[in-house]
Amino acid sequence: MPDDALLQRRHRLLGTQAPLFYERPLHLVRGEGVWVWDGDGRRYLDAYNNVPHVGHCHPHVVEALCAQAKTLNTSTRYLDEQILGYGEQLTATFDESLVRLALCCSGTEAIELALRIARACTGNDGVIVTDFCYHGNSSTVAALSTAFLGPEGIDPRVRTITVPEPYRLRDGVDPDEAAMAYAADVATAISSLAEAGLKPAAILFDTVFATEGVPTVPQGYVEKAVALVREAGGLYIADEVQPGFGRTGTGMWGYQLYDAVPDLVTLGKPMGNGHPLAGVVARAKLIDDFTQRAMYFNTFGGNPVACAVGRAVLEVIQREGLVENAGVVGAHLQEGLRTLGQKHAMIGEGRGHGLFVAVELVTDRASRAPATAEAKAVVNGMLERGVLISRTGRHDNVLKVRPPMPFGKEHADQLLAALDDTLAAL
Amino acid sequence: MPDDALLQRRHRLLGTQAPLFYERPLHLVRGEGVWVWDGDGRRYLDAYNNVPHVGHCHPHVVEALCAQAKTLNTSTRYLDEQILGYGEQLTATFDESLVRLALCCSGTEAIELALRIARACTGNDGVIVTDFCYHGNSSTVAALSTAFLGPEGIDPRVRTITVPEPYRLRDGVDPDEAAMAYAADVATAISSLAEAGLKPAAILFDTVFATEGVPTVPQGYVEKAVALVREAGGLYIADEVQPGFGRTGTGMWGYQLYDAVPDLVTLGKPMGNGHPLAGVVARAKLIDDFTQRAMYFNTFGGNPVACAVGRAVLEVIQREGLVENAGVVGAHLQEGLRTLGQKHAMIGEGRGHGLFVAVELVTDRASRAPATAEAKAVVNGMLERGVLISRTGRHDNVLKVRPPMPFGKEHADQLLAALDDTLAAL
Repeated sequence: MPDDALLQRRHRLLGTQAPLFYERPLHLVRGEGVWVWDGDGRRYLDAYNNVPHVGHCHPHVVEALCAQAKTLNTSTRYLDEQILGYGEQLTATFDESLVRLALCCSGTEAIELALRIARACTGNDGVIVTDFCYHGNSSTVAALSTAFLGPEGIDPRVRTITVPEPYRLRDGVDPDEAAMAYAADVATAISSLAEAGLKPAAILFDTVFATEGVPTVPQGYVEKAVALVREAGGLYIADEVQPGFGRTGTGMWGYQLYDAVPDLVTLGKPMGNGHPLAGVVARAKLIDDFTQRAMYFNTFGGNPVACAVGRAVLEVIQREGLVENAGVVGAHLQEGLRTLGQKHAMIGEGRGHGLFVAVELVTDRASRAPATAEAKAVVNGMLERGVLISRTGRHDNVLKVRPPMPFGKEHADQLLAALDDTLAAL
Repeated sequence: MPDDALLQRRHRLLGTQAPLFYERPLHLVRGEGVWVWDGDGRRYLDAYNNVPHVGHCHPHVVEALCAQAKTLNTSTRYLDEQILGYGEQLTATFDESLVRLALCCSGTEAIELALRIARACTGNDGVIVTDFCYHGNSSTVAALSTAFLGPEGIDPRVRTITVPEPYRLRDGVDPDEAAMAYAADVATAISSLAEAGLKPAAILFDTVFATEGVPTVPQGYVEKAVALVREAGGLYIADEVQPGFGRTGTGMWGYQLYDAVPDLVTLGKPMGNGHPLAGVVARAKLIDDFTQRAMYFNTFGGNPVACAVGRAVLEVIQREGLVENAGVVGAHLQEGLRTLGQKHAMIGEGRGHGLFVAVELVTDRASRAPATAEAKAVVNGMLERGVLISRTGRHDNVLKVRPPMPFGKEHADQLLAALDDTLAAL
């Protein structure tokens, strides 16, 4: 069926506003590893999708899925070995204080649960987030997802802070000093909550600040922000929905980039390689206190099929050395971006963590004016050159490169060549 | 591994409060059709689980799952034929006004989305629910799930009404007249909202009132309640997470039991036969207005694997005549319960819709005093006799029988015999 006809059927079923990528919507029919194919048989290098974390349709994951789906799929209201085997393997990758697990179906559900736990256990209601973040789509979570606020607006119990973007500091300003000043804004947020009769239940961060544009946050910033919240009686929720499962290349979790252990960690997207699997890992006392007071049950969360899939994902990450690969190939990409930057003045900065790579495009290096329209053109130009990427950041001028984890140097080189060509053709 | 050791590992991983069925927790290892097996190889008749709707591990559903999982699993940000084929087939089973679909991962997410749409499109904030309901586990939905309120308590924007339970009306009271009086409480709820400066965005019902104990709600009650809410500017959200997909035996949807077409319908549990799949079906204008104003995207919702699974579930329902079966076997169960009632005075009333069967146990038929402790003993006694059921209702004295849909007369007879035996042994 031609893409136009598909689009018309889609508009009748989902409405015209359901989000689609690209000016020319892409009709995908097959995926394998870092590759996807469209309806015309054209192959694309996937440098964007983080959900198929260990690669599209990874055979080990598909095999685990099918074997368990043929055997049993119930709920956590029965004793089951799958959740124990998986959960023990998963929690072993966290700090030794983070031993309890609650599984659910989506990142939104994980954030919902972490917030409910934080509010119930602290007795406080305030939440501090950044001023350009995204954490999910429920009414509570949408009302603190400051990058895409809905018709509800912002929750009156929420205060926002601005994350330091060293690239955008004025020349001569010391990034480390600036970062301390930015962190001090947490104290202002706490005061503002206090004026409304509120105290902080938590500070909630995506640990690579993905929606914020993946700024290179100086050491000490997160640590100070978290310390201020803790002094005021709040907890630290690390949102690992985007950074987690080894993408940073330096460890399994984004929070390990900083010297602060979270109280609650939220997991999602890459966890099941596309299977709806998400969860919260937390200190024992938090889960125990909350579940003493709330009947929390999630019908599909932690079912045997989801756990078999989650376990297979962990096994592939380990067997295929994907954390190390993210570090090596991420460094290779950054090096390539530096080289490209010598040729294309539009590249303001390449940065990121492992295989979470950001390329900030500017129309002028001196003023660092965001190249928003150009970034859009680059994303669409890369599609025409067979490479999938997207963009992010408050000016929508930061190319977002976040491929499946088996992305190799040869794939990085293909991406860099396509970017070179796209920028040259602008 | 012995069950005691599993339980200890579970307590370390999930805490001691994660809900489990039965006094002797059941360790399941395999499922097929209406049967499940424990770790010792003992077989149980599953007369409780509605999530494996077309039967545990149905081969057609597993085959569709595996075929798609091997091929492609992405998101709705690409054009995809699976969601169109499935969505068109699904919406065709609804009233002709209900044409738009938004897919997500859980019943909680579906309720969240329906409430966000209702509030955004009406401009109102109030919600009317029953005083003993359950709709999910997010902070917003938990705060209106009156049967299991959490530490947050009830949302101040929520008002509750009591559903008529004809079985519990005083002798001589006409159920139809009583029902109209109960429905008039909706007007009181609307007045109470108005006193707080609020108007109703929606009335939200589980269309078989499952948590409420599956009362035989007289004709006219739902219709009048909905009409009052509509007059006040609110919408009707039909929660089909439990009743939907043919369980009532009279049609695909519980709302068809009444003469009122919903504005929004929420779907969940049985939709993917255990795969995390849920959604909202709605009038076009509601989805279109909402998505003009909110960026709604659900990472896993509507992905090709979920849609392939959902489509296979619809195909099995049709091919195997499961709606008709639910009607026939449900009637057979009710007849058997009437016969058992002649022998066991504890059976106050058998009632329900198709294969959603409720058996109200009482210690005394004249006073209808709830047999709560006895109901618990019956549920555990049935387990020892190889049949899985549970209980519901505000007094927790209503046996809940809600088997996978291929439940036949022979299975019903086995259940009735076990119930006979269990009641005799009390």
